[in-house]
Amino acid sequence: MTTPAAPQACDLLIEAGWVVPVVPHGVVLADHAVAIRGDRILAVLPRAEARAAFVATEVLSRPGSVLIPGLVNAHCHNPMTLMRGVADDLPLMTWLQQHIWPIEAKVIGPAFVADGIELAVAEMLRGGTTACAENYFFPDIQAATYSRLGFRALVGLPVIDFPTAWARTQDEYFDKGLEVHDNWRRDPLVSTCFVPHAPYTVNDAAFERIRMLADQLDLVVHCHIHETAHENTEAMKQHGSRQLARLDRLGLVNDRLMAVHMTDLTDAEIALCADRGVSVVHCPESNLKLASGFCPTRKLQLAGVNLALGTDGAASNNDLDMFGEMRTAALLSKGVSGDASALDAASTLHMATLGSARAMGLGDRIGSIEPGKQADLACIDLDPLETQPMYHAISQLVYATGRHQVSDVWVAGVRKLAAGELVDLDAGAIRAKARGWRERIAGIRSEA
Amino acid sequence: MTTPAAPQACDLLIEAGWVVPVVPHGVVLADHAVAIRGDRILAVLPRAEARAAFVATEVLSRPGSVLIPGLVNAHCHNPMTLMRGVADDLPLMTWLQQHIWPIEAKVIGPAFVADGIELAVAEMLRGGTTACAENYFFPDIQAATYSRLGFRALVGLPVIDFPTAWARTQDEYFDKGLEVHDNWRRDPLVSTCFVPHAPYTVNDAAFERIRMLADQLDLVVHCHIHETAHENTEAMKQHGSRQLARLDRLGLVNDRLMAVHMTDLTDAEIALCADRGVSVVHCPESNLKLASGFCPTRKLQLAGVNLALGTDGAASNNDLDMFGEMRTAALLSKGVSGDASALDAASTLHMATLGSARAMGLGDRIGSIEPGKQADLACIDLDPLETQPMYHAISQLVYATGRHQVSDVWVAGVRKLAAGELVDLDAGAIRAKARGWRERIAGIRSEA
Repeated sequence: MTTPAAPQACDLLIEAGWVVPVVPHGVVLADHAVAIRGDRILAVLPRAEARAAFVATEVLSRPGSVLIPGLVNAHCHNPMTLMRGVADDLPLMTWLQQHIWPIEAKVIGPAFVADGIELAVAEMLRGGTTACAENYFFPDIQAATYSRLGFRALVGLPVIDFPTAWARTQDEYFDKGLEVHDNWRRDPLVSTCFVPHAPYTVNDAAFERIRMLADQLDLVVHCHIHETAHENTEAMKQHGSRQLARLDRLGLVNDRLMAVHMTDLTDAEIALCADRGVSVVHCPESNLKLASGFCPTRKLQLAGVNLALGTDGAASNNDLDMFGEMRTAALLSKGVSGDASALDAASTLHMATLGSARAMGLGDRIGSIEPGKQADLACIDLDPLETQPMYHAISQLVYATGRHQVSDVWVAGVRKLAAGELVDLDAGAIRAKARGWRERIAGIRSEA
Repeated sequence: MTTPAAPQACDLLIEAGWVVPVVPHGVVLADHAVAIRGDRILAVLPRAEARAAFVATEVLSRPGSVLIPGLVNAHCHNPMTLMRGVADDLPLMTWLQQHIWPIEAKVIGPAFVADGIELAVAEMLRGGTTACAENYFFPDIQAATYSRLGFRALVGLPVIDFPTAWARTQDEYFDKGLEVHDNWRRDPLVSTCFVPHAPYTVNDAAFERIRMLADQLDLVVHCHIHETAHENTEAMKQHGSRQLARLDRLGLVNDRLMAVHMTDLTDAEIALCADRGVSVVHCPESNLKLASGFCPTRKLQLAGVNLALGTDGAASNNDLDMFGEMRTAALLSKGVSGDASALDAASTLHMATLGSARAMGLGDRIGSIEPGKQADLACIDLDPLETQPMYHAISQLVYATGRHQVSDVWVAGVRKLAAGELVDLDAGAIRAKARGWRERIAGIRSEA
């Protein structure tokens, strides 16, 4: 007989009906508990053993709920949440040129960025998302806003061939971007990466400079690639090759690359991505809504490519709902491949957690419930009738759960949502600001 | 100057921030009210005029909400809600033969049908659905259950070539079905139609008998048709024609036909459906999940075919969420057609309301907010951050709203959901029964 170890102290013990740790893959731990100290996960263990092993400052008991790693939205343009539903059901170029860009031209700036992100963070937290990869202008404002709100973000340093409200010249994009990187490089929640807009809006020299700096500074490169087949038709004319081949010549096709969309891929390109460790960020609802094409997720999955999941901006989705996005990804993969076993529920949840985290260079810190990882967690109530009867927790999460069933959320051990209510964000104030922007944007539209 | 008319009495006046009546198409009426007396809609008028025009027993004010016709789920197998998530991510025949059918064989019967429908009705009401087209066995139990629960249903009289727990011979299917029809033919909420299972499970003589009886009794024929391309490969071998052509020879391709799925359609078949007034019931999530194929909704829309929307059974969806289904339908139509203007938000809402009602032969009674129609209504709260800012109510309903935002629901003027809570159904008792079935079904699975 062994002498029981003395109980350890912890800040929080969450007891759940089911824990889905994501690692090991596909496992559901019934009646388990997760112990947290500070910003980290200490242990995952059976509920029956937890109270003997830990003395917790707080114990949260959720017997009808499943605890998962916080969802990770690997592609968004969160300031655009203020343009949710401003224009729909339009071809891409009409949508951009006659609606989105004319509005953006009049509203873009620090206040738009900060207020849009605040609305987005509130929505993401309410839906169990604890981290995102941001892709917009004003990364300085983005970083400050995510930090102030206590939300984990990979902030993008934009590079694009034309002047914007953020920067005028190529040098200015790099200079300002590197300054933002430097200011935030030791932050516990905010990290930075490069976000060259797309191969068709960024020149070779800029890509080469990004490649060099990304290597030196150990940064991810987050870029829209092969969003439509049209992009490659044009690339063949302009560069004599498809865009991925061009990026490969420029040295960017490697394990730092977060390639977003990727609807138009040959088998050789899929093999190249697998070989080089490229992460593909799938945005199924945006691809559908803008009729961009179908990302071949089944083929990518079989090739062993790391798959991540993103909502894209709320202007082309129109939400930041990672539960809805998981469901669409899982369903669409089956429909497009003709194989009902494609992108099963566990693989889809992996994509929305650890797959996204790895793509963002955060796979060692978040994306799974493992000792030593950050305590980024979401608790989902499966008691509602919509998730009854309950045969399998991962199936329920992907195929039946609505994001409103998320009850509790933590980012780095800090409670952000409690019993469905935002803890430290003022929903009323956020709504009032959103309404203010609505008035202003509706005014711009009526002038046009 | 005219003398104002004396105010009329009504039972209920609902004042909403927006009323979307579906007829006229695409219209959003800001600050309007709907007056109801008994089971019917009396009037739709500006909020400012409503209190002068009507003296109401009850006034419900919902300034941040949109009022729509209750959603109409045109294809479901609601007893199967008890098998939600019991088996996923499997090819169709593995799923059916190794999971669904072996379980059904052991549980099917009056209690399974009644309890499954009760769970489904609770879920549908909570999600703004007020009517459904049911397709399962034991129509007697179905009708009694829907009637008891005060939910509008088109109950199907099943016909299939092999014996089941409901009937053994072809004659018995017809005899028992006609008896159910006769018992319910004057019911205000429950009506009946034929549900021959599918062309590949029903013989010519049975279809001819259905055709004759449907004409005589003025009944709809609700049938799975062209669910997969495989169905027609087999039909070519067996009948020397595709199934729709065979059904046409048998006289069934007409405006009584609710053709469900229809993923495999030639242009000539689309033209035939348009010419004959066939309704096509689209079940996008089921088609995706089972990798059945893509219903060409854009082509059907352009051809002028009446489109209806259904969730299919919760065992292959895995929910009865018509908001989610609208969203998937709208997105998928764009992706499949390559046209981002396909199945716009207003057309999608039409499909889920009046389109479904017309398919079910109820287009003169439900599916729109018009004077004289039944007061089947759903009120949706757009105040949550997920539907802010609010530029366009129909866009928000289709692209951003979650079903949990449904606050109030009426069926035939009777309040069924109030501030998100079921009025006359006991959610705790329904959950307990679902758990009982889970234990029993999990037991069957562990024996297998």
